[in-house]
Amino acid sequence: MVYTIAIDGMGGDNAPKEIIEGVEAARDRYSDLEFLVFGDSKKISNYLKDSDRITIISTKQVIAMDEEPVKSIRTKKDSSLVQAANAVKDGRADALFSAGNTGALLASSIFIVGRIDGIDRPALLTEMPKFDSKIDKFVMMDVGANAENKPSHLYQYGLLGSFYVEHVFKYKKPVVRLLNNGGEEDKGDQMHKNAHQILKKNKSINFKGNIEARYLMSDDTAVVVTDGFNGNTALKSIEGTALTMLSLLKTSVEQGSFKTKLGGYLLKPALKSIRNELDYNNNGGAVILGVNAPVVKAHGSSKSVAVANTIGQTRTILESKLIKDVQKFAKTHIKQLQDVKQFDLPEN
Amino acid sequence: MVYTIAIDGMGGDNAPKEIIEGVEAARDRYSDLEFLVFGDSKKISNYLKDSDRITIISTKQVIAMDEEPVKSIRTKKDSSLVQAANAVKDGRADALFSAGNTGALLASSIFIVGRIDGIDRPALLTEMPKFDSKIDKFVMMDVGANAENKPSHLYQYGLLGSFYVEHVFKYKKPVVRLLNNGGEEDKGDQMHKNAHQILKKNKSINFKGNIEARYLMSDDTAVVVTDGFNGNTALKSIEGTALTMLSLLKTSVEQGSFKTKLGGYLLKPALKSIRNELDYNNNGGAVILGVNAPVVKAHGSSKSVAVANTIGQTRTILESKLIKDVQKFAKTHIKQLQDVKQFDLPEN
Repeated sequence: MVYTIAIDGMGGDNAPKEIIEGVEAARDRYSDLEFLVFGDSKKISNYLKDSDRITIISTKQVIAMDEEPVKSIRTKKDSSLVQAANAVKDGRADALFSAGNTGALLASSIFIVGRIDGIDRPALLTEMPKFDSKIDKFVMMDVGANAENKPSHLYQYGLLGSFYVEHVFKYKKPVVRLLNNGGEEDKGDQMHKNAHQILKKNKSINFKGNIEARYLMSDDTAVVVTDGFNGNTALKSIEGTALTMLSLLKTSVEQGSFKTKLGGYLLKPALKSIRNELDYNNNGGAVILGVNAPVVKAHGSSKSVAVANTIGQTRTILESKLIKDVQKFAKTHIKQLQDVKQFDLPEN
Repeated sequence: MVYTIAIDGMGGDNAPKEIIEGVEAARDRYSDLEFLVFGDSKKISNYLKDSDRITIISTKQVIAMDEEPVKSIRTKKDSSLVQAANAVKDGRADALFSAGNTGALLASSIFIVGRIDGIDRPALLTEMPKFDSKIDKFVMMDVGANAENKPSHLYQYGLLGSFYVEHVFKYKKPVVRLLNNGGEEDKGDQMHKNAHQILKKNKSINFKGNIEARYLMSDDTAVVVTDGFNGNTALKSIEGTALTMLSLLKTSVEQGSFKTKLGGYLLKPALKSIRNELDYNNNGGAVILGVNAPVVKAHGSSKSVAVANTIGQTRTILESKLIKDVQKFAKTHIKQLQDVKQFDLPEN
């Protein structure tokens, strides 16, 4: 089986250079991948060394990192992102990759690639490393696609996250928990209380109750269900703390006594391996789940290594038949997905 | 000036032993403190070595860590917590200390000690260390007293947090920011958008816009304003990540080569100083701000060192005249505090 991935060649802080170098690295690594790269063909050609299995499709517009998402995809029809999304919609490509504007990629996913029938609110899933646990990684969803969520959305995230972990990580019956500010089921605001109740009733997932943020990196939860606002806070708090601590340790080594400096030198490999596990360049990108194809977002500042690794993750998702299985499930369980909406709160 | 602190002698995982030992340590450290200790006088006497400036007041009931807050303070009138709160209300004590049930302490603060006129929703403030920054610590409020907040509450937290930092840390014009999922002022849900707008209009504080969770420990923000749900997530994510990373480093040292082990040994003092900065035993407790006296909550598992340090923090708050100044401000700015309520959202 050969898969074709549509690449937004102009998205990201280091586009098109690092994107193209990453695509070539992925092409060399995986013999079953082909690429449609959308963007400024002149600029792209400057960096492309070998066009084997890589087709450049010229586009004239670029959506900047800070442009208003929905407006930009409506007005910039000939942008690298919109054209790449069109290729997925038309069946010319199987998956979409971008390191550009997250909001615009989300809008393209929903309005061009299209929502899976039965899934109301696609969202961002991220893979994170687990330490001090029986499992080596976990996923969290939503980590920021939506600023406001309803209980029925969180119900769907429990399903989508479980499907992802079963397909991509090959974990069996992954433990699902709801990120909340306490362990008991009556904790949190009304949205989280209702979400807890409907997640508990869902026999298709292995729901085990709430998780507090302090156990995210260490307990047995493989799928963390969260609203986008709170999930974004958790993700960024973890990243910030980890980076701050590593830099702190580096400073105390640099400014320390000879003894401390020597200690830091000897401990370097151990520190490096921790940093690597936390470094997004070595982990995958964020996945927009709930739409009719794999859409994967690499970090905006990705270098070619991160681009190649994220393409590898995209390939794993394609191979796993994740999207087909979600589509099938949503179709056969449409009543279950609709019924939980009675637990949604009235709109403000 | 001599201050009297009412102590909930029975609250906390290690009560009354560690509470009493902590009170004695604080008594020996500060010559201007006196204590009213509420609890089982028989048990307390077992641990009390010297009753100088310490008066035991016998109570028969104890509120457990997991009891329902409002119900427990209504039904257990002779509990150590309720009686200690009564002492503050009656003017027999100037401040309230507990390591027990946080919800019950919050309820006692609001219903017994009483809200400051003009402050609608008292909340939990916590001090945290800052690294890689010009300032050495910051505060975050609310970190979990409320699962749901309105924009006008966040407006008040900006004020209360600024007062705290000016009085207790002696920072001048502390930078205030709103914890949100993006830097731009239109980020977040409607509650956060509205909160941003009214914080921006408040000339009494030095509001500088939003802060994303990843910069909490490293930027120049001295007062982080947040709703209780999200603030709790940020706080616990930071704690969890820091502890996980330290334990990870310990494991790689223990299981590493001789070289790694030696490195770990040499680096021990540097690691210890990081751990100390993050250890709640060396930092203060959480402060319930917005009520008519300092109410300070030590960690449930506090040992005597943490108890003594948290009492020291309580003393600093008393000395700073924080509560009096907040009361005065709220009285003279009552219209300003009321006016912002028009930005609150309709109730669900």
